[in-house]
Amino acid sequence: MPSRADLESLDRADPLARFRDLFALPEGVIYLDGNSLGAQPRQTAARLAEVVEREWGRDLITSWNRNGWIDYPARLGGKVARLIGADADEVLVCDTTSINLFKALTAALDQRPDRRVILADRANFPSDLYIAEGLARRRPDATVRLVEETELAGAIDDSVAVVTLTQVNYKTGYLHDMAALTRAAHEAGALVVWDLAHSAGALPIDLNGAGADYAVGCGYKYLNGGPCAPAFLYVARRHQAKIDPPLPGWLGHAEPFAFDTDYRPAEGMRRNLCSMPSILASAALEVGLDLMLDAGIYALRTKSLALTETFIRVVERRCPGLFDLATPRDPARRGSQVSLRHPEGYAIVQALIARGVIG
Amino acid sequence: MPSRADLESLDRADPLARFRDLFALPEGVIYLDGNSLGAQPRQTAARLAEVVEREWGRDLITSWNRNGWIDYPARLGGKVARLIGADADEVLVCDTTSINLFKALTAALDQRPDRRVILADRANFPSDLYIAEGLARRRPDATVRLVEETELAGAIDDSVAVVTLTQVNYKTGYLHDMAALTRAAHEAGALVVWDLAHSAGALPIDLNGAGADYAVGCGYKYLNGGPCAPAFLYVARRHQAKIDPPLPGWLGHAEPFAFDTDYRPAEGMRRNLCSMPSILASAALEVGLDLMLDAGIYALRTKSLALTETFIRVVERRCPGLFDLATPRDPARRGSQVSLRHPEGYAIVQALIARGVIG
Repeated sequence: MPSRADLESLDRADPLARFRDLFALPEGVIYLDGNSLGAQPRQTAARLAEVVEREWGRDLITSWNRNGWIDYPARLGGKVARLIGADADEVLVCDTTSINLFKALTAALDQRPDRRVILADRANFPSDLYIAEGLARRRPDATVRLVEETELAGAIDDSVAVVTLTQVNYKTGYLHDMAALTRAAHEAGALVVWDLAHSAGALPIDLNGAGADYAVGCGYKYLNGGPCAPAFLYVARRHQAKIDPPLPGWLGHAEPFAFDTDYRPAEGMRRNLCSMPSILASAALEVGLDLMLDAGIYALRTKSLALTETFIRVVERRCPGLFDLATPRDPARRGSQVSLRHPEGYAIVQALIARGVIG
Repeated sequence: MPSRADLESLDRADPLARFRDLFALPEGVIYLDGNSLGAQPRQTAARLAEVVEREWGRDLITSWNRNGWIDYPARLGGKVARLIGADADEVLVCDTTSINLFKALTAALDQRPDRRVILADRANFPSDLYIAEGLARRRPDATVRLVEETELAGAIDDSVAVVTLTQVNYKTGYLHDMAALTRAAHEAGALVVWDLAHSAGALPIDLNGAGADYAVGCGYKYLNGGPCAPAFLYVARRHQAKIDPPLPGWLGHAEPFAFDTDYRPAEGMRRNLCSMPSILASAALEVGLDLMLDAGIYALRTKSLALTETFIRVVERRCPGLFDLATPRDPARRGSQVSLRHPEGYAIVQALIARGVIG
């Protein structure tokens, strides 16, 4: 077990140490809940004041062009793209995770009209399953099949149109092998929709390297965009021209300002835009994204694994037998969290919060 | 024509005069574009700073309960309800106008399985038509029929499942007779979805008095909620229990924190919640709503009609024959805007903007 002196020396050599002061957290609090609500960048308050006072208050509607409001979905999408192994024209920041999942699953089902199954990981975040079930209920040709997360690869047969799963399990931190599962799906003729809610900003993701089809994710966890920040949608370039948007939006039209009564989808990714995200929320998210890009996702992963590895070791040495480790020991199968099981887990977490440790 | 002295005396007696100073607008600007982007309440900046510093920055995840984040959709919905003639438990603030329209049209089609037509006003805002077309394309039993706004009532036959229209025409300011059209639809066995984007906050609306079925609207125009503020959805209480949400969301589940894999819709209105709106955007919208409720929608309408009536008269006297009046002369058929047609309209508007009048 590393000693306190060992850890202090690691801290002194930490290349990311300067980022701590760029976040506003209450005095005396150890905040470990970025998987639920990201910490607040100090810059966010000033940036929001600028949007309110100058952009909305003074520049008013001219801000759509002068201050780039109209470009938020694509500009922020380009920044998210750098964190998830996508090209800039494959990602939009818009709508919400659930809405974007609905778009992605619809597109995938449309591309596999001879198949009827949406295959999902039973351990997926429940609301992803609700969207899948809601969609399947309304398509006479579709049904949702749930399997355990470890049985996914073997369950992809030629009835499966699309596999939907969250890359990192929100409870255990289990990290799926994106490349292997995507390959397995493709070999069986299926498509994959990845939910990156618990991985974008937490670890390097290589959607294009894995040959991924679709992905969604949120901005309010590891991207530090603020409560209920806008979400994102990724569509691999090879699929973009095939999409018939189920939620066709004004700014996804080929010529929004022609005010046509008929919908003609924009070329490329933009057709997937249903609604513009809140400008206030977009500005806040951009601050979080810029910090992420500045820190670098590989440096973050290095530090994250060092922290989780150390935490697991210290807990096992100092509280032997007290907890079950729900998170994989293998760093290659682990997100950025460590989950410990205990029959009195809720009470323990409350007691820790009372001592300033928010888990 | 009223003289300048007449107008100044009206201004002195204006019971709403104190509200001018509650909005932040640039010095020397006459802002007449609240139908595109509402003016900014002065209180918004301070309220946002409070949300950022205290709620997100200090209280962190405890804000979901302590600062009422979880209640935003219902609480803001209750405030919108008072502006549109609905009960508090019939309105939610959530998602976007397009998404909420998708939910409402889906629900209406579900309720009329033996009918196939979505009847729409050709002068409706184009993105409403895109959502209707997108939905119809994916239901083998549905199609969109477009008619002129003056021909709507006569076009509602027994093939029509639902009529979708915007109460105030965004170009001309023409105000539909909500009670008469709703009655005509019901007599023909159809349902109605009202888009209140250009009427909520602009004039008194009585959805329940008209026996309305569904309504949607946005927060960024007359409600002064800020650019791309959250939208709202109204569902008449009598329809609520029948709804099978097409976009089932986590917080629309009967027991969100049971984390069930199966979706069970919440009782009542909450099942229509797909995603939580941005908390920053919600807080800003609440400031706008509180100002509206403080001013009172009847007082606003009285002043609005006095202003538009005066404006029409002054233009006709001082610029005789120069413009065509696109807006109805009859105040009962007029929203809160006045639209003038001129072949050089664009250039005139640009010249006015250069002189500080944003039309």
